[in-house]
Amino acid sequence: MREENDQAVLTVEEVFTLAAEALERAGADSHNAEAVARTVQAAERDGCASHGLFRVPGYAAALKSGKINGAARVKISKPEGSVLKVDGDGGFAPPVHEAIAEPLADLAKRQGIALGALTNLAHFSALWRETELLAAHGCAAFACVSYMPMVAPAGGKERLLGTNPISFAWPRPDGVPMTFDQATASRAMGDVQIAAREGESLPLGVGIDADGKDTTDPNEVVKGAILPFGGYKGSAVSIMVELLAGPLLGETLSFEAAESDNKDGGPPLGGEFILAFAPEKTRVNQTRAGFGGKDGASQTHADHSERLFARLLAMEGVRLPGDGRRSRRPKVATNGVRIPKPLYDKIISG
Amino acid sequence: MREENDQAVLTVEEVFTLAAEALERAGADSHNAEAVARTVQAAERDGCASHGLFRVPGYAAALKSGKINGAARVKISKPEGSVLKVDGDGGFAPPVHEAIAEPLADLAKRQGIALGALTNLAHFSALWRETELLAAHGCAAFACVSYMPMVAPAGGKERLLGTNPISFAWPRPDGVPMTFDQATASRAMGDVQIAAREGESLPLGVGIDADGKDTTDPNEVVKGAILPFGGYKGSAVSIMVELLAGPLLGETLSFEAAESDNKDGGPPLGGEFILAFAPEKTRVNQTRAGFGGKDGASQTHADHSERLFARLLAMEGVRLPGDGRRSRRPKVATNGVRIPKPLYDKIISG
Repeated sequence: MREENDQAVLTVEEVFTLAAEALERAGADSHNAEAVARTVQAAERDGCASHGLFRVPGYAAALKSGKINGAARVKISKPEGSVLKVDGDGGFAPPVHEAIAEPLADLAKRQGIALGALTNLAHFSALWRETELLAAHGCAAFACVSYMPMVAPAGGKERLLGTNPISFAWPRPDGVPMTFDQATASRAMGDVQIAAREGESLPLGVGIDADGKDTTDPNEVVKGAILPFGGYKGSAVSIMVELLAGPLLGETLSFEAAESDNKDGGPPLGGEFILAFAPEKTRVNQTRAGFGGKDGASQTHADHSERLFARLLAMEGVRLPGDGRRSRRPKVATNGVRIPKPLYDKIISG
Repeated sequence: MREENDQAVLTVEEVFTLAAEALERAGADSHNAEAVARTVQAAERDGCASHGLFRVPGYAAALKSGKINGAARVKISKPEGSVLKVDGDGGFAPPVHEAIAEPLADLAKRQGIALGALTNLAHFSALWRETELLAAHGCAAFACVSYMPMVAPAGGKERLLGTNPISFAWPRPDGVPMTFDQATASRAMGDVQIAAREGESLPLGVGIDADGKDTTDPNEVVKGAILPFGGYKGSAVSIMVELLAGPLLGETLSFEAAESDNKDGGPPLGGEFILAFAPEKTRVNQTRAGFGGKDGASQTHADHSERLFARLLAMEGVRLPGDGRRSRRPKVATNGVRIPKPLYDKIISG
């Protein structure tokens, strides 16, 4: 670590060590600490500050308060049909994701599709890590999680829905999947918090204050509510996420998680909905004229999806979802990961 | 039918007869004509003009040109794992939906989740009918379809993506599911066409003209492109729909469907992705403190989801997705279905 203009500058390797050691000091065992640290490291590697070291003090607080089990061991049940029920043992999400990627992908390859019904875990990060772990096993994947009531439903002026992110990954022949990961809120709360910390203002439409009025001040949005992305349509998708990651799995809705949370700054326990698809089992061989390539029959799903990606990439101004994140890697690798010195000090001393 | 101010006014029953007879005149057998007419009727009953009789001339044209098989018989394969592969036999979507609702729900009840991999059918309507058919069998359901390249991806100025609607239905104890059904475009092309017909202008942000410039003129958007809902996030969801309803199933992408279409005004043949979930199989019994009701263990998924709906409905200004559509039923039942007389004449003479 070196200091520069009130910032701590770290290599991507140092991010892992800093996070893992902080979590172990807070009470996690090395198995759990290192899995979380790999996710923190991946976020910083990709320039996603809001899911990187910024989250570590919250993780540490939740370990110290005893809310999160730092010695958790994931319990994976025998598949029931196409459902893999997974108990996170009250621990962090990343060790769960690392443990289930292979069995969930295997179940999808047998059944065509498989649902990872994850319960009793603390998710406090981006979702692209779990969908990309499944893509690395050859599956397309969708994941969603409901997370703390910070969002007002369309038409409303009060918090009820979580920021409720959704992620989707589709494997590509070069091994780098097409991935998106986005809050169904107009902005993730982490980004609103960072804007507040940096003294930046928000565009109108991102959030409302405690009286339900539009505001550009992130501090007021923190006290009020974020709005869904895309108006009533995004609000509907957010409601779907509440149902899929909650009642469908037998897990908490956002407002239930908040009601039972101890408010130590760390994530509450809850569920996660993960679908894996095995295209070689879901795909019908098509021979009718005009399908895919003109001689469609011998086309694989990857040949086929690459046709879409090629068209997208050929269009001026368009990039694939996830490419922005990956495009930041070389710069981060060269310039290092920069975090505010006070955040660094808090992690070191925490 | 009676005429009033250049409009034809029909009862909901007359809508069915008008549609069914027009489709039979155009060459459909009664099995196919009546299934389509039930979907047209349901749309008009709910005040959804853009998916009602407005579509019948396109259906009739596609029957006459031979693009759509008016004597189609749905072929449902034996389930492979959790996948039900369904060949629409080159016919309309509604008879497929009516045929698969029960077997797909049954498969979901055995496996927890089931994928309806629908191929070789012409979808030209809303998607709530199929998700609500599955909800009537006790399943939650998600459906999506890619439909004709009319939407520019985020950042781009040319059409590539379909309007790519998504629908989700969640069963409720009173038998009326919570349902949404929405284009991932900022507006469905049907609504843009109706705005053009009615001489109305569109809000900025709905579409661009043929030069890629923002416009409020629906006629220019018809020549240019619609924009995704919610900016880059909606664009990413639209790309997911292309992949799920296309390469995952071995079916066409939007631009492929357009390239092979005969442009008779009717829908091209393509695929549909339908997921059914059986909550009684996916739900984990939870007993830990703070979950759901304080005595969470005996709570059903329906008890649980009703807690969310109650909170939503208690909030001023908020209604449940789908309630707007259903709220129009009494007015339609009283005042009748009103369509432009020229549309009525076209259907009668078509």
